[in-house]
Amino acid sequence: MQIGFIGLGNLGTPIAENLLEHHKDLMVYNRTRSKTKPLEEKGAAVCKSIKELASACDVVFTIVSNDAAIEEITNGEDGIAKNLKEDGIHVSMSTILPATSEALFKIHQQYKNHYIACPVAGRPEAAKDKKLNFMISGDDKIISIIKPLLNDAGAINVWEYGKEPGNANVAKLCTNYMIQAALQAMSEGISLAQKSGIDERQWMQMITSTLFNCGIYINYGRLVLEKAFLPAAFSLELGLKDAALIKKQADKTGTAMPLGNLIKQEYQQLFDEGYKDHDWSALALSIK
Amino acid sequence: MQIGFIGLGNLGTPIAENLLEHHKDLMVYNRTRSKTKPLEEKGAAVCKSIKELASACDVVFTIVSNDAAIEEITNGEDGIAKNLKEDGIHVSMSTILPATSEALFKIHQQYKNHYIACPVAGRPEAAKDKKLNFMISGDDKIISIIKPLLNDAGAINVWEYGKEPGNANVAKLCTNYMIQAALQAMSEGISLAQKSGIDERQWMQMITSTLFNCGIYINYGRLVLEKAFLPAAFSLELGLKDAALIKKQADKTGTAMPLGNLIKQEYQQLFDEGYKDHDWSALALSIK
Repeated sequence: MQIGFIGLGNLGTPIAENLLEHHKDLMVYNRTRSKTKPLEEKGAAVCKSIKELASACDVVFTIVSNDAAIEEITNGEDGIAKNLKEDGIHVSMSTILPATSEALFKIHQQYKNHYIACPVAGRPEAAKDKKLNFMISGDDKIISIIKPLLNDAGAINVWEYGKEPGNANVAKLCTNYMIQAALQAMSEGISLAQKSGIDERQWMQMITSTLFNCGIYINYGRLVLEKAFLPAAFSLELGLKDAALIKKQADKTGTAMPLGNLIKQEYQQLFDEGYKDHDWSALALSIK
Repeated sequence: MQIGFIGLGNLGTPIAENLLEHHKDLMVYNRTRSKTKPLEEKGAAVCKSIKELASACDVVFTIVSNDAAIEEITNGEDGIAKNLKEDGIHVSMSTILPATSEALFKIHQQYKNHYIACPVAGRPEAAKDKKLNFMISGDDKIISIIKPLLNDAGAINVWEYGKEPGNANVAKLCTNYMIQAALQAMSEGISLAQKSGIDERQWMQMITSTLFNCGIYINYGRLVLEKAFLPAAFSLELGLKDAALIKKQADKTGTAMPLGNLIKQEYQQLFDEGYKDHDWSALALSIK
């Protein structure tokens, strides 16, 4: 089974490196060519175009920044759908709208190949540690083919969300919303502790060893306390993109999300103030 | 050492029962007399007035609903401060403003006895399981006398926040804010999952076994999913009271808390709509 990987960003690179350990003939492509270097040095075959990669592969993984990017690389004469062989599989790991997955699923159907939404939760360190959580939805048979490859890619868990192509994307957006909400909460809580004159580190130590003793509060709590927002593991620009997707999905489904709206406004303001390259935990900077 | 306990509500009762296991001569008082019944049946001595209890005790624990109630039972001719013996200790477990603790500390100083802020985190089940987290601040010597009694009262941990009388109250308000913020986040996240057509229970199962695998999300997540808001372990009325204290403290210290403000507004609206006796996790009902 020939495997390809498109999108060698902060998270894509360690996932592709994991796959390469199990699939020595991995083919890779990235729009910015220089980012293929680490993979090339480890033995991956670098393709010059998406068309070249897609036409040579049985399974193509993609992880790109946003809905426009995944549509661009999937659609059209030189896109994945047209060039992937019959019954080939496109595994789409990007965080995108469910509606985008539904549209891409249909395009692949037209070309008699397959699209599977498979967004991933985890920062680059989690990919290196092979502790990624994948959410997946779509055709059962295709999922059963893909699951072993996800283990190769660094999965600690694969969570199945049924047949609808966009379901896994819903799960991912909801999860990212929860992380953003926790960032907002920590920012305000830490600020109140500081300004009220107690040791905010001691307080965070208390809550993260009792009621909130879980990864999100422990790890992001440290970033917020230390204002360690550079370099970004996941950029504020991408955080804003996710907040905008969450708002779109909320509007489409008639879901009231006052906190979601607040977070989106804050990300937008920080983006406008020039913080786009900071980590998305820099949401804390909106609390003065 | 003669010990007394004032305030036999949902949380006060199991804490007093814990103390009674170690201090057979425990004295208790509650404004509504009928609530002393469970303690009386287990052998506690019921006092007819605060004055009677305070004048007989070396250490008086109090846990009451709000700042006005703690001021009322502490101050005046018949209050704890005037009637407690010299060097007696008032251990104040209520969730109140730091400024209220500072004022009560001074009143006790006038009467040459002691006030210690010692708010407690934990629902009634946690008290029964002896897994309460106490936050404490004040004079070192007094704290060293009180700590063994807190173990008797059901502590799993005692967190010390320094000498300032109100510091422990700051830690408690910040902690309750974090719980309210997590409730708001879960409410919106679960609603978005539902309305987008995925199984919200499966999604909560995923996040509470991965990124959010901590008590607050696991236990309150269940309440929100099941809309199990009655009977209340901690009432929405008290949740609104806490949200109001958090806002007061934020305003006093110049802390921007947009999410804190949102939560207070939502609690106020639910209170006005008649939900005051529901659990404070009924904050979820504000998300339609």
